[in-house]
Amino acid sequence: MERAFKFRGAFNAVTKLCETSPSTAAKGVVTHSSGNHGQALALAAKLRSIACYVVMPSNAPQVKKDAVKGYGANVVECVPTLQAREDTAAKVIAETGATFVHPYDHPDVISGQGTLALEFIQQAEEMGKPLDALIIPVGGGGMLSGCITAAKALNPHIRIFAAEPLGANDCAQSFASKTFIPSKNPRSIADGLLTSLGSRTWPIIRENVEDVRTVGEEDIVKATKLVWERMKMIIEPSSGVPVGVALFDEEFKALEGMRNVGVVISGGNVDLERLFWMRKVE
Amino acid sequence: MERAFKFRGAFNAVTKLCETSPSTAAKGVVTHSSGNHGQALALAAKLRSIACYVVMPSNAPQVKKDAVKGYGANVVECVPTLQAREDTAAKVIAETGATFVHPYDHPDVISGQGTLALEFIQQAEEMGKPLDALIIPVGGGGMLSGCITAAKALNPHIRIFAAEPLGANDCAQSFASKTFIPSKNPRSIADGLLTSLGSRTWPIIRENVEDVRTVGEEDIVKATKLVWERMKMIIEPSSGVPVGVALFDEEFKALEGMRNVGVVISGGNVDLERLFWMRKVE
Repeated sequence: MERAFKFRGAFNAVTKLCETSPSTAAKGVVTHSSGNHGQALALAAKLRSIACYVVMPSNAPQVKKDAVKGYGANVVECVPTLQAREDTAAKVIAETGATFVHPYDHPDVISGQGTLALEFIQQAEEMGKPLDALIIPVGGGGMLSGCITAAKALNPHIRIFAAEPLGANDCAQSFASKTFIPSKNPRSIADGLLTSLGSRTWPIIRENVEDVRTVGEEDIVKATKLVWERMKMIIEPSSGVPVGVALFDEEFKALEGMRNVGVVISGGNVDLERLFWMRKVE
Repeated sequence: MERAFKFRGAFNAVTKLCETSPSTAAKGVVTHSSGNHGQALALAAKLRSIACYVVMPSNAPQVKKDAVKGYGANVVECVPTLQAREDTAAKVIAETGATFVHPYDHPDVISGQGTLALEFIQQAEEMGKPLDALIIPVGGGGMLSGCITAAKALNPHIRIFAAEPLGANDCAQSFASKTFIPSKNPRSIADGLLTSLGSRTWPIIRENVEDVRTVGEEDIVKATKLVWERMKMIIEPSSGVPVGVALFDEEFKALEGMRNVGVVISGGNVDLERLFWMRKVE
């Protein structure tokens, strides 16, 4: 899980819960997530020996259900609607007393995910290249707001840029209007970044990012593939979004005072049988 | 070139030549290689500001010719036979006085490539996990014999295992019979390991490896793909061969006293448009 920021958040949330309310923690944790947060929470709960319930739509891929079960968690299936997910989670909570851990709009998840910025800034300093700026992908904004909190605490002058797919630009729209605008019909190959901002993450983002930069689908694919080819690292398109800002965003590249720019790359979930650049870019 | 062991060899050979015989070095270096050694020698020559000639078959992919030219070297084309390659290289040498740098059967190439074992052993020690053994892929044996020399100098007790495709098992045959047997009609997806051993590399290998382990095509693909999936690292099938020994070779795995085993992985040349596991394994 070294490269999985979701685990940082889930593990922090579970650990905090176990330490502050052991009797509540003993009843377990629950979330609805068909993605990495479900697996991360399952693993975190396993490491702290508490129960974990993951609500997943019945049509979720078997491999994801198996992964959650593999960490010893209970998969609770529901029909594939947002309403059913929330209702089913509420039912699990009522029956078991488990604590709900939101995938991103949760203070301990946010701060846990933000630890990656602590390490990033430290490592850059150890290399003699202190960061002037960070480019961070934004979906629900958990990692972004966590990184903001950590980075600004270490260095109030560090410049933070959010990176978002043009086809899922709710954060850019919200930032431009200073009003929360939910994600509506988002479309992007960067499928980790389609979520709406949260009520906790949005204010942190609004007050602290210098800008929200958007990247078109072609540049997302180009940037992601370049990382594969040159760095020999398998990253998913969502991780290619901030790379696209760093490499192809002329307005960003024209900014002054950007000697050392940190790009947050996290997430390597790709279908290796059918690579995304073989699909048609819509 | 961080992950490219060929550069370690080529750079060492060029540096040694420049320092011991500057007037000879000034006439340049030459090799015949359509692969990484050609590019590595071109870059090494560029860094030392000497001429470089790379003999390549006329049917070599344009992208490889361009890569060599991109480092400022001269591509000398020949018809695609071994005889033509050698004749053409001899002609370049006669005309220019350039020094021939063999891709693997050259003492400075061998020792340069062996530096990876120095770093590997040091890093493992720093991590508190001193290596009991190394598994190293073998083609021409340059990297293997260099790693042997370096590793045994640091730790005479370290156990060295060569890893070879079953379909190109000339080293295993040679080792079993203690007689040099050239590679005949090798067939493997691990196309970096099809070469015969060299007159310099074979004696070093013969005297120092504990065993030569072979890996079948299916296990090569399985091991390589596993590294992609779990480590998110793009490696070529040749690099999957030693991983296959570590993971799937029951006889190897049954050996005693192998707490910390180092697996040398180097090389990420793959066609990303057509992944090798989509081809039929023959």
